[in-house]
Amino acid sequence: MRARPTTLPLGLEGPWPHRHILDLDTFSRREIELALGLAATMKQVLRRDVKKVPSLRGKVILTCFYEPSTRTRISFEAAGKLLSADVITMQSAGSSVEKGESLVDTLLTLQAMAADVLVLRHPHAGAPYVAARHLRHTAVINAGDGTHAHPTQALLDLFTLRERWGALEGRRVVIVGDIAHSRVARSNLWGLVRMGVQVVLCGPPTLLPWDLLQGRHETPGHPFASVEVETDADRALEGADAVMVLRLQRERMETGLLPSLQEYIALWQVNERRLARARPGALVLHPGPMNEGVEISPGVAHGAQSVIEEQVTNGVAVRMALLYLLCAAGGAKA
Amino acid sequence: MRARPTTLPLGLEGPWPHRHILDLDTFSRREIELALGLAATMKQVLRRDVKKVPSLRGKVILTCFYEPSTRTRISFEAAGKLLSADVITMQSAGSSVEKGESLVDTLLTLQAMAADVLVLRHPHAGAPYVAARHLRHTAVINAGDGTHAHPTQALLDLFTLRERWGALEGRRVVIVGDIAHSRVARSNLWGLVRMGVQVVLCGPPTLLPWDLLQGRHETPGHPFASVEVETDADRALEGADAVMVLRLQRERMETGLLPSLQEYIALWQVNERRLARARPGALVLHPGPMNEGVEISPGVAHGAQSVIEEQVTNGVAVRMALLYLLCAAGGAKA
Amino acid sequence: MRARPTTLPLGLEGPWPHRHILDLDTFSRREIELALGLAATMKQVLRRDVKKVPSLRGKVILTCFYEPSTRTRISFEAAGKLLSADVITMQSAGSSVEKGESLVDTLLTLQAMAADVLVLRHPHAGAPYVAARHLRHTAVINAGDGTHAHPTQALLDLFTLRERWGALEGRRVVIVGDIAHSRVARSNLWGLVRMGVQVVLCGPPTLLPWDLLQGRHETPGHPFASVEVETDADRALEGADAVMVLRLQRERMETGLLPSLQEYIALWQVNERRLARARPGALVLHPGPMNEGVEISPGVAHGAQSVIEEQVTNGVAVRMALLYLLCAAGGAKA
Repeated sequence: MRARPTTLPLGLEGPWPHRHILDLDTFSRREIELALGLAATMKQVLRRDVKKVPSLRGKVILTCFYEPSTRTRISFEAAGKLLSADVITMQSAGSSVEKGESLVDTLLTLQAMAADVLVLRHPHAGAPYVAARHLRHTAVINAGDGTHAHPTQALLDLFTLRERWGALEGRRVVIVGDIAHSRVARSNLWGLVRMGVQVVLCGPPTLLPWDLLQGRHETPGHPFASVEVETDADRALEGADAVMVLRLQRERMETGLLPSLQEYIALWQVNERRLARARPGALVLHPGPMNEGVEISPGVAHGAQSVIEEQVTNGVAVRMALLYLLCAAGGAKA
Repeated sequence: MRARPTTLPLGLEGPWPHRHILDLDTFSRREIELALGLAATMKQVLRRDVKKVPSLRGKVILTCFYEPSTRTRISFEAAGKLLSADVITMQSAGSSVEKGESLVDTLLTLQAMAADVLVLRHPHAGAPYVAARHLRHTAVINAGDGTHAHPTQALLDLFTLRERWGALEGRRVVIVGDIAHSRVARSNLWGLVRMGVQVVLCGPPTLLPWDLLQGRHETPGHPFASVEVETDADRALEGADAVMVLRLQRERMETGLLPSLQEYIALWQVNERRLARARPGALVLHPGPMNEGVEISPGVAHGAQSVIEEQVTNGVAVRMALLYLLCAAGGAKA
Repeated sequence: MRARPTTLPLGLEGPWPHRHILDLDTFSRREIELALGLAATMKQVLRRDVKKVPSLRGKVILTCFYEPSTRTRISFEAAGKLLSADVITMQSAGSSVEKGESLVDTLLTLQAMAADVLVLRHPHAGAPYVAARHLRHTAVINAGDGTHAHPTQALLDLFTLRERWGALEGRRVVIVGDIAHSRVARSNLWGLVRMGVQVVLCGPPTLLPWDLLQGRHETPGHPFASVEVETDADRALEGADAVMVLRLQRERMETGLLPSLQEYIALWQVNERRLARARPGALVLHPGPMNEGVEISPGVAHGAQSVIEEQVTNGVAVRMALLYLLCAAGGAKA
């Protein structure tokens, strides 16, 4: 894969430095801005009557999902196809994954099939890193690995906020829910902090990411030094510019980390009453799929402040931008 | 989605009036003729060496099947691809449908992914209507909802008859089988009656659609006033121009609506002996998949009067026409 | 499907004679060479930045897998898409195959959907022959039928060897493993013998294909007269130019054909010590997916002599060539 000229107004100076998209912890503010800027161009393509560009003609994208998924898989498939790439779907059900082949052997095989990009979702944290280490010719995009990271979701969240606000710096964003087990929250944490956002983490004490936050007040230069933690949702939402609501996994109750659904709803559900404590017009985000009536009330989910549907549209635009950067802008060879 | 010029000889006067294809009860005879006429043009495309036209380039079609299907799903996928649309498949297995998200939320998400058309099959009658009510930018095609409707199947049946006969008016068509539970029969009933066909419904009394037929002799202007009902298959077939055989679902026996398979075969199977009572050259249709030896004998299924394979080819042509009308002829915006 | 001019340097004299690709037993040496030569051209396409050619635009390829598969299915899908065909995937799970329709009726239906090529994998030996007998307009490619044949795998193996060696004649190739139940071995046997290769079959006596070999020393002109059988793997590998290692199915132990995994590993695993008995630089092939540590040691699987990843890339090129021959070179009509 060689870099090739593009007619899109990229404003790239030098090649895109990332061969893979694994998480946002290695992304500079400039790189995030570049990706979001290109996504804005892609979003214009989505609004056209003929929403298709030939940029990735002759490129092969393999989506490889070892966990069930609708929106992320379809979002990548739409993104790739609208760029004229060939997109091939592999789901673990009905594949020889069942035959006990190792992940690395499967991925080497997929690489050998002329795959330019591998979009990988896997239940084990770190699986896309293993993939990236073994693949010489294929770019890897982490589409969610265990409870670790989901960088394309974080970028689409950043895009959604930036599109509404213009700039992110100095804004106050509250993430509410099961942060400890949320790859969406972890990738957003890296992205939001890098963009200068004041992040507030809010949820039951048993579901906060204490590992990530450890020593942040004692260690000079700790990336999360500025992050606030607040278990009281009413106090956390005070003055927020945006609220990111996380999906509550039912499994949390079974493992004893959460006493009851009723208590969670009473104390942490984002509903009209609680949202009223945020700034007027504060935005509400949710990565989906939602448990309406659990972590979010139906009124908030579908209310005027919700940008949840926009997030989905933006997801296609952001993934188009990332696929483009990896395939066409020389990323995969850099 | 704006209307755009087309090089296909449409003969459309004014835009296509339907934003969605939900059932044939709202279709006028002129609209049915227009769809069938366009399907005839599409069928010529299918006969070419390069059977592909660029009409729907840059359009996104999502096929969303909450019930298992082979032919309908593949037929829509082929139809969309041959028109150069991007087709994305979502099947309920392996999707986040399992996560308990509501149908409406799933559909709003799919709409947000820049979907121009949603092809929906769902076990619940009415689901595509719910979808159509909630989607602002995406056209919905009902690919079968419970026992309610299957309008694209009915249109392909009408196309198949019209292609053989020229005109439909005044012909006699017998539908044989489990009509009460057949979405194929219900949509055909609307379409055939609208086209001036004399319809005869035939099957065990427990499997006739008494709800639809209620009051048809007393109510002035009842749409099914002219429909005949005849439980005796031999008498029903007398003088028929075509026989539509319905698939017998094995579940009917379990629920006590049918005494035994043997009795059904003896009394309602369409076989050589029974078909001989119809007009010479009477056509035999079946929506597939067939239970050969149950509702139809192998000899009739594969005999000279069978147009069952033609129905499948015509299905691709009819679906091409409908996708075109919704996307390119301004339907989705009208 | 009519033959049409091509810009690929085919060197075809007269049309490609095969309407279907069912097994290599009916292929002449010239036909194998022609397919491999075209595959070499296709491999150059795979190395381009834009690895796509318009040769099969407007053709419809249906991949129809009644057994789980990753690599073969994806390989055909990539091959078809890179030739600009429309590829539609049907897997038995979630399809109306479950509804008890006969295979022939399903295939007739798929043909009626304007399918130019049907790529069929089926657990029953002979299923693609049944398909080919019933389909008038659709070419059939056998992508593996029971324990019978897997001709595209054999052709990619031949391609891999020929690419490394230039010519195949006179080379010594050992096939090690459960040959009796291996469709890969059976098709390779036909192909290798036809190309003048000295074939050695090696494995436990209970897993050798005695049916195929029966009477080969007594029958004049027996196709496998020259084939050697050697149950001792150390002796078999002596002087080999290449070793094809077969996957060991765990089921073999359960059915009593193999005493224990430990014994198999001790006597027939292809490992560094055993490979040292072959010629220096002898090539190692495996159709995948591998049981590393069972039929092959990890060191050999990923060592300098392994061409296992090349096989996968070559598989795409070979399948592109075959699809082209069937669709564009007039094969399907011949």
